Amino acid sequence: MSERIWNIYLSGEIHTDWRENIASALATQALPVRLNSPVCVHADSDDCGATILGSETNPFWHDYKGASMNAIRTRTLIGDADVVIVRFGEKYRQWNAAFDAGFAAALGKPIITVHEPSLDHALKEVDAAALAVCSTVEQVTQTLTYVIQGKIPALKGILAAE
Amino acid sequence: MSERIWNIYLSGEIHTDWRENIASALATQALPVRLNSPVCVHADSDDCGATILGSETNPFWHDYKGASMNAIRTRTLIGDADVVIVRFGEKYRQWNAAFDAGFAAALGKPIITVHEPSLDHALKEVDAAALAVCSTVEQVTQTLTYVIQGKIPALKGILAAE
Amino acid sequence: MSERIWNIYLSGEIHTDWRENIASALATQALPVRLNSPVCVHADSDDCGATILGSETNPFWHDYKGASMNAIRTRTLIGDADVVIVRFGEKYRQWNAAFDAGFAAALGKPIITVHEPSLDHALKEVDAAALAVCSTVEQVTQTLTYVIQGKIPALKGILAAE
Amino acid sequence: MSERIWNIYLSGEIHTDWRENIASALATQALPVRLNSPVCVHADSDDCGATILGSETNPFWHDYKGASMNAIRTRTLIGDADVVIVRFGEKYRQWNAAFDAGFAAALGKPIITVHEPSLDHALKEVDAAALAVCSTVEQVTQTLTYVIQGKIPALKGILAAE
Amino acid sequence: MSERIWNIYLSGEIHTDWRENIASALATQALPVRLNSPVCVHADSDDCGATILGSETNPFWHDYKGASMNAIRTRTLIGDADVVIVRFGEKYRQWNAAFDAGFAAALGKPIITVHEPSLDHALKEVDAAALAVCSTVEQVTQTLTYVIQGKIPALKGILAAE
Amino acid sequence: MSERIWNIYLSGEIHTDWRENIASALATQALPVRLNSPVCVHADSDDCGATILGSETNPFWHDYKGASMNAIRTRTLIGDADVVIVRFGEKYRQWNAAFDAGFAAALGKPIITVHEPSLDHALKEVDAAALAVCSTVEQVTQTLTYVIQGKIPALKGILAAE
Amino acid sequence: MSERIWNIYLSGEIHTDWRENIASALATQALPVRLNSPVCVHADSDDCGATILGSETNPFWHDYKGASMNAIRTRTLIGDADVVIVRFGEKYRQWNAAFDAGFAAALGKPIITVHEPSLDHALKEVDAAALAVCSTVEQVTQTLTYVIQGKIPALKGILAAE
Amino acid sequence: MSERIWNIYLSGEIHTDWRENIASALATQALPVRLNSPVCVHADSDDCGATILGSETNPFWHDYKGASMNAIRTRTLIGDADVVIVRFGEKYRQWNAAFDAGFAAALGKPIITVHEPSLDHALKEVDAAALAVCSTVEQVTQTLTYVIQGKIPALKGILAAE
Repeated sequence: MSERIWNIYLSGEIHTDWRENIASALATQALPVRLNSPVCVHADSDDCGATILGSETNPFWHDYKGASMNAIRTRTLIGDADVVIVRFGEKYRQWNAAFDAGFAAALGKPIITVHEPSLDHALKEVDAAALAVCSTVEQVTQTLTYVIQGKIPALKGILAAE
Repeated sequence: MSERIWNIYLSGEIHTDWRENIASALATQALPVRLNSPVCVHADSDDCGATILGSETNPFWHDYKGASMNAIRTRTLIGDADVVIVRFGEKYRQWNAAFDAGFAAALGKPIITVHEPSLDHALKEVDAAALAVCSTVEQVTQTLTYVIQGKIPALKGILAAE
Repeated sequence: MSERIWNIYLSGEIHTDWRENIASALATQALPVRLNSPVCVHADSDDCGATILGSETNPFWHDYKGASMNAIRTRTLIGDADVVIVRFGEKYRQWNAAFDAGFAAALGKPIITVHEPSLDHALKEVDAAALAVCSTVEQVTQTLTYVIQGKIPALKGILAAE
Repeated sequence: MSERIWNIYLSGEIHTDWRENIASALATQALPVRLNSPVCVHADSDDCGATILGSETNPFWHDYKGASMNAIRTRTLIGDADVVIVRFGEKYRQWNAAFDAGFAAALGKPIITVHEPSLDHALKEVDAAALAVCSTVEQVTQTLTYVIQGKIPALKGILAAE
Repeated sequence: MSERIWNIYLSGEIHTDWRENIASALATQALPVRLNSPVCVHADSDDCGATILGSETNPFWHDYKGASMNAIRTRTLIGDADVVIVRFGEKYRQWNAAFDAGFAAALGKPIITVHEPSLDHALKEVDAAALAVCSTVEQVTQTLTYVIQGKIPALKGILAAE
Repeated sequence: MSERIWNIYLSGEIHTDWRENIASALATQALPVRLNSPVCVHADSDDCGATILGSETNPFWHDYKGASMNAIRTRTLIGDADVVIVRFGEKYRQWNAAFDAGFAAALGKPIITVHEPSLDHALKEVDAAALAVCSTVEQVTQTLTYVIQGKIPALKGILAAE
Repeated sequence: MSERIWNIYLSGEIHTDWRENIASALATQALPVRLNSPVCVHADSDDCGATILGSETNPFWHDYKGASMNAIRTRTLIGDADVVIVRFGEKYRQWNAAFDAGFAAALGKPIITVHEPSLDHALKEVDAAALAVCSTVEQVTQTLTYVIQGKIPALKGILAAE
Repeated sequence: MSERIWNIYLSGEIHTDWRENIASALATQALPVRLNSPVCVHADSDDCGATILGSETNPFWHDYKGASMNAIRTRTLIGDADVVIVRFGEKYRQWNAAFDAGFAAALGKPIITVHEPSLDHALKEVDAAALAVCSTVEQVTQTLTYVIQGKIPALKGILAAE
């Protein structure tokens, strides 16, 4: 019998390497997961619509075309996800991350948030919709390992690798 | 035959009087609407959970209990809404407004956003999910008047009152 | 016990008076219906977005803003409808009428189409999704009378009035 | 881990080779897609019902049986689709294409439309429901490449091949 | 606070007066119910489509048009129902009653069946989908009285009236 | 404009007067609520099926008929509810209360639980699905007052009345 | 790219070999289908519940336990189906076939009915919910071949094999 | 054509080896099933949240974090399940098992309960929502064998192995 594959969607912050950290940690655990994410090349994400469909003189429509094109990808992959992980950082307003969290919540998707405790108050509505609130990427991989494999990972060994 | 009542949910910014402005403008038009909103008394919204259900030493759980209690109200009223209006301002991160927008989008609710053009780029994913992007409260009331009554209001008269 | 009100949405052709004909015929029958429709003032329907939200130099976005604003109304009212009636005429391409029919079909709404038999072949996919295919407005009112009151109207009397 | 397969449904115009053009362009990019479409042999699409289930004297029912049989295929494949692409041409009324677009919209499927700019005004309601509006098949393949692979294709090379 | 109105749909057998019996019994109990049913005039139910939309030479299409027109009414009212009651009798095959029961079951509607015990075996799949299986109309009214008012009616008094 | 009515379903414990306490407290606040509950007369709830539909020699089927009949009421009213309140007490196993909570959770209904802190560990899965966890009926009425009226009640006055 | 597999559910008549005929005809066409059906051993279907879960003295509960156990299978497989085929014969009342058709209709599944024209009138409501009405098993296999492969089979060759 | 895999979720009692018994019995039958369950290591299930996400001084939040983390796993797997099996034992209150049953019921999942007859009365609401009520694990495996393979297993041989 083939194993169940868990689809994990990684939303939010695109200017740090948190997705790569999760991916390599999960690879170590050999978890049966398929990781998905928005397009994380900032310029491509901004300009895709205008580059492919034609440039716009009004920056509003430049943005609108790009955001709509990205939505083809993100809504499909959030709709497919078993778990949606949303990362918030100090930089930028990251309203799209909160939008994704709300979208996932209305679809009934389990949500895991990841952010520094300094953002706790600002993110209280989002955290209250989450089933796990992490402050480190390490906690995310431990949570996924537990949820999927049913085992609490030997924390010390993993933490040592951090 | 009784008129159709439109349920309008007003999400976002709570430290300005934009909701009152919409309410009074709509009253002038005698539109058949029922306006709903989150609790807009900031302290009550923050403290409701701890005040009613018991205080917490950890501020995370203080926030969590409040946000969860508010969610009883907000999710019910967003679920009821025919149109969801989301207001973003310069102050604060307002992640809960973006969360509400995502939640409404996944439910298929028509969304109207309201914000200064200076926020266009930061809000591009949210705007791309909206059916109308307004920069003034006046535009919101005109949009609702048109959508519900089927008539473009005599703009000059209304604008003069602005 | 108050009577059940039937919400009827009248989609399609806006340059003839077919909606008024249905409304006056139904008024004669005293049926418990609430009739809804898109905005039927052609210029307003085209220009609402640009007039209220700001003009556009590119006619594509002029149209886009208007169509999006109209969608706030039409999707809400189609979503509310018990029966969706779609009228096709010889003039114009009326793709929005076919779009509304597809939208209603996917929502599981009963559809009644109204068009000349000359359009039968061109409309075969739409008609195959309908529960009644009418060629006259008279047939629409008779169908609604039967469906709602459970009585076949005395056809001769009504026809005489045509 | 096996790759995610994207189901793409190609609706609309059947008298040009636009589907073949997309298929060969996508094959070049080795995208993980499964392309589906209605039956595109015009005579079979018209006559399937009567040929298989029995001929009809009334052309209305001839059409009806064919359209219903085709609906078994088209609704199943649209229901399966991750992305629905709808092509409109100058010829014919193509109400079934607009019907498919409305059907897909109500199911929450991401829609890409493809048509000449000369049809912009006539298709404004359909375009307003789309996440990308293309005027060339080339743009469709670039959009799919970007959405699925997360990379903006080297446009010049591809365009040169056009 | 106004009382909750229960919508009760009465499906099945149309050649006896079981609906009238339920209606008068419920009127005695003053239950807050709205009773709905298909059109029960047999000839109208058979001929409505052809009479209103045009006659057919092929009896299959005569029936088809009538059944489709009736479906506008029945699916709307079943979709509205809080409880669906389905009556089976010895006469006729009454496949439409079983179809309604299956339709209601898939919508998650509570189903009450009413039939003689002699039909128990033939109706076992339908009864297994029901929350109450009655053999008399009296039991139906007692069940509705209990479900809506929360009181077991004084059985003797009611039975005496039978 | 008429006020929004909130439907509140009160599930669980039937051998104490907690529902009456909530009802009278809410009446004091004049909240626009409609309170619903299962049938709370223990014997009627147990025996309704056998009494109305016929007695059973096997107690399993006696129970089964009663529980099925009660489900007509409870599922309809939970399906209608804006908020589901579930009360657990020390007595009895009250699996039906936990069942109702699970049912409400899968429907996305906001849940409020009410129980002594001594049951915290045993009820942790149910509480984790709730948006408010109360230990007193007083807290329930304060929560509802806040959620519906948007005001934190003057706690001292209310508590004094306890 | 692997082929799309179509799940076909074959409901209804169990005392003839129509399922085997369809299976062997489809095997000849090498269609990518997975055929599912209820348990067709009549005695097992009737007695499964009592045999496995314990015998019952009351035949009603004997039937009820069997029908409920069969429903675990049939509802799962109908829920999975891309197309539901329902066969009605002259023998027996076959209310379960009509129930399955209603269940499939409410789920939006494409339905194909198969029956002699002599049953047309009795089955008019079921046929009106179907997208193809066949009178022979041959027509069913041709319909599936067309729907799945997009080609009208060479009818003569197939018919010769009948 | 690959076989259909049935996803079976085993909810409830974690302090006996009933899951292992089902797994080994099903392995003997070579049924195409994928068995899923909550995490059954009691301490891990209780402490996962606090261990991974940080310890709590208040035991309520210790439990809450653990239950929320487990819900990521259990709701995903119940949502995936074709059949949900819920085991109740004499020990503990097992409210989470009843919660899972209610959750599964609202999703329309077929439910099989397993418990001693001594619990019949206490579990009557849960059993009334089940399609099979078993008192032994043996009956569960026979039910699954019948439902999936369509054959009543040779009971004596299997029972002899008990």
